Amino acid sequence: MHKSFLRVISPAEARSLLRRFGALGKEEVALESVLFRVACDPVKGLEDAPNFHRSTMDGFAVRSVDTFGATESSPALFKVVGEVAMGEIDSTRLKSGQAIRIWTGGALPVNGDAVVMVEHTQELDGTTIEILKGVAPYENVVRKGEDYKAGQTLIEAGHRFRPQDLGLLAAMGRSTIDVRKRPAVAIMSSGDEIVPVDQVPPPGCVRDVNRHTLTAAVLEAHGTPVWLGIAPDHLRSLSNLIDEGLKSADMVVISGGSSMGSRDLVIEAIEAYEDSEILLHGVALSPGKPLILARVGRHPVVGLPGHPVSAMVCFDQFVVPLMRRLEGEDVELPFLKATFPAILSRNVPSREGRMDFVRVRLQRKGGEVLAVPVPGKSGMVSSMVRAHGHIRIEEDCEGLYRGDRVTVHLFSAWIEEELEKEYLSGHEASARGSDNFSAASEQEKLSSI
Amino acid sequence: MHKSFLRVISPAEARSLLRRFGALGKEEVALESVLFRVACDPVKGLEDAPNFHRSTMDGFAVRSVDTFGATESSPALFKVVGEVAMGEIDSTRLKSGQAIRIWTGGALPVNGDAVVMVEHTQELDGTTIEILKGVAPYENVVRKGEDYKAGQTLIEAGHRFRPQDLGLLAAMGRSTIDVRKRPAVAIMSSGDEIVPVDQVPPPGCVRDVNRHTLTAAVLEAHGTPVWLGIAPDHLRSLSNLIDEGLKSADMVVISGGSSMGSRDLVIEAIEAYEDSEILLHGVALSPGKPLILARVGRHPVVGLPGHPVSAMVCFDQFVVPLMRRLEGEDVELPFLKATFPAILSRNVPSREGRMDFVRVRLQRKGGEVLAVPVPGKSGMVSSMVRAHGHIRIEEDCEGLYRGDRVTVHLFSAWIEEELEKEYLSGHEASARGSDNFSAASEQEKLSSI
Repeated sequence: MHKSFLRVISPAEARSLLRRFGALGKEEVALESVLFRVACDPVKGLEDAPNFHRSTMDGFAVRSVDTFGATESSPALFKVVGEVAMGEIDSTRLKSGQAIRIWTGGALPVNGDAVVMVEHTQELDGTTIEILKGVAPYENVVRKGEDYKAGQTLIEAGHRFRPQDLGLLAAMGRSTIDVRKRPAVAIMSSGDEIVPVDQVPPPGCVRDVNRHTLTAAVLEAHGTPVWLGIAPDHLRSLSNLIDEGLKSADMVVISGGSSMGSRDLVIEAIEAYEDSEILLHGVALSPGKPLILARVGRHPVVGLPGHPVSAMVCFDQFVVPLMRRLEGEDVELPFLKATFPAILSRNVPSREGRMDFVRVRLQRKGGEVLAVPVPGKSGMVSSMVRAHGHIRIEEDCEGLYRGDRVTVHLFSAWIEEELEKEYLSGHEASARGSDNFSAASEQEKLSSI
Repeated sequence: MHKSFLRVISPAEARSLLRRFGALGKEEVALESVLFRVACDPVKGLEDAPNFHRSTMDGFAVRSVDTFGATESSPALFKVVGEVAMGEIDSTRLKSGQAIRIWTGGALPVNGDAVVMVEHTQELDGTTIEILKGVAPYENVVRKGEDYKAGQTLIEAGHRFRPQDLGLLAAMGRSTIDVRKRPAVAIMSSGDEIVPVDQVPPPGCVRDVNRHTLTAAVLEAHGTPVWLGIAPDHLRSLSNLIDEGLKSADMVVISGGSSMGSRDLVIEAIEAYEDSEILLHGVALSPGKPLILARVGRHPVVGLPGHPVSAMVCFDQFVVPLMRRLEGEDVELPFLKATFPAILSRNVPSREGRMDFVRVRLQRKGGEVLAVPVPGKSGMVSSMVRAHGHIRIEEDCEGLYRGDRVTVHLFSAWIEEELEKEYLSGHEASARGSDNFSAASEQEKLSSI
């Protein structure tokens, strides 16, 4: 049973293999369902927006030139000749010294070119006002076409729609739009020792953790999870589930399918397909080394390590980018995570030539936020639960020192309130160019453990 | 119609008012539905995990003492006395010089205390191996209870569940869990000039942008949006919709309900309720000043400015924190956003005493990433579409200089590939203490525009 070591490639080389996979087809969805989907085509302006000069204030529309020089001590007298009804274009032509009442969002009268805020006026009687501050041309006005112009590209193909992008589509009257199909990701757990959550594991067995972490991770990455089941370590069972996955989904993810106990079975099952290819088997990543990436037809098949922590790291680094590619984004990278600046609490050695992900918990200590490495082997899901995020040690780095400033990539967009306050104040301080951390504490010589 | 200026309070003071609102009730949901929900109770370990000494490698279980001193040049000879079947506890008692084959996840035999990786062994014949590297006690083993112990608190009440937290619940056999009710947020747009998306707006009117941006923002913040409709500027219509919102949701959000044209109506409608209170009317925030926060019974009622950009900024800064509070998180802050370090491309003045949010687009220029302010009034949703995020200028700051380093709070967890690569390399460079940006370009005297 002596096995050769994995032929390990670098994370960058592994990423470049993701380029082998392209985008899924398109489908038309209603505006209400566009959030987080990816645009198939550029979105262009259909007409000028706004399509009239629009007031941004409540006040009085005027010809700006008439207000020139008006101040509190020398106000300009204006006659109010009417009120712009919301939803109507007023055909009034203002004469010199005339104003018309207008509300935020209202359309300026034909020859009005500015709006005086009501706060800068004094009402004398029902039809006369004093203007206490002159306005420049187009002050308090969004000009016709200032938002965007007809024909202008506003959203590129491949863009993932955010809430404001839906607002733009709404403004343009787009009630449906073509988006990439959402990737369906089939998930299975493999291993004779894995039992479902509702069973009490017999001695030597464990409940199926990866089914739940990976299903949730697919949802978080805006995909559709498809649960295949638990495959025992037999070729036939594994092949049957892979088969089902290829039929029912766009990608197949096998957790526990890359460790030595079952990886030969996974590779054998994949190679049995006519148009298949093992692209990668082993990547210089810790945790997560024994990753398998393969292609069957146009579908990616990924074998993740069985350890929950390794499986999650590999999922984030490789499956999320694959999902993004299938959904039409031309990227090889996971989603950005919120980050948090911190001071490392102890030395962390790392092996050169390997990218290390170190789980850390954030802790306040005095005025500083410390990143404290969370002990725990990659089989221990509790170490991911205790951690706020991880720091990454690059391949060309032998380790980090206690006192080093580190960037913590957070697992989620929320952390404890106290830390968040620190984060907000810290970030803004750095935005002003100051340094929100005291000098790094005494550096110790990095000792290899 | 002369009105007094708003009595504006600081953002910090406004935030502290959010403490007036408490958490919703609880409900029991299945493990599959726990993602992004908030725990009502602490989650504690039910039993030791793992509940046996578990191998983290494929190889051979041994008594570590027997391997002492083994090296490649002086290997130790071991007799293989069997194989641990996955899912079973082996009752073999190892004698000196005996090993038993084991797989990742397997249970160690009674008196085994370490595992030798298969890569560090040489098979001589079917029952004899050489061990080429000694192992320490518990090397390549997760000890019983090392993950967590029975009774230990693993997740605090008020924690929002991430994918790994579901993994932990799965490991513990928890198939249901009590979570806070998900906040239902009723949304209406107000204003005579607002028409639905499927209508062609008559002159002076605009399509309803905020319905769509705010509905999406509620979804993004893990709430349930409830659409009430468009209220014309009449007290009765507004009151009827607020009434419906209070009955069908936990919070009511009125966009366009805080500008001068309609705010009196909103305030009048709110004050008509017996147990009601206007908590805030005006906050030193730009865009977003004319915000209304009120309480009707235990429900928050929020009047957002009608301009799409102002509405989104206020939503993020005040509605998201309210949703988090209703869901049982003890916070006053929005979710963390991914941030991106950049160099400001031009001077940005700001009024002291006001918190400014400045939309920016990220652009590569040489080896730097520039944050370029996106022009556009707060009525222009396209300026939010063009922007990658915003920078925040604090109340005590008069502005930022061209060349200043700024922290861009991104609107979403994805941006263009090229920028992401820059981001990743930049972040890791800073993790090693170096400076990934060249010296700030020549600083110009800040001129007030």
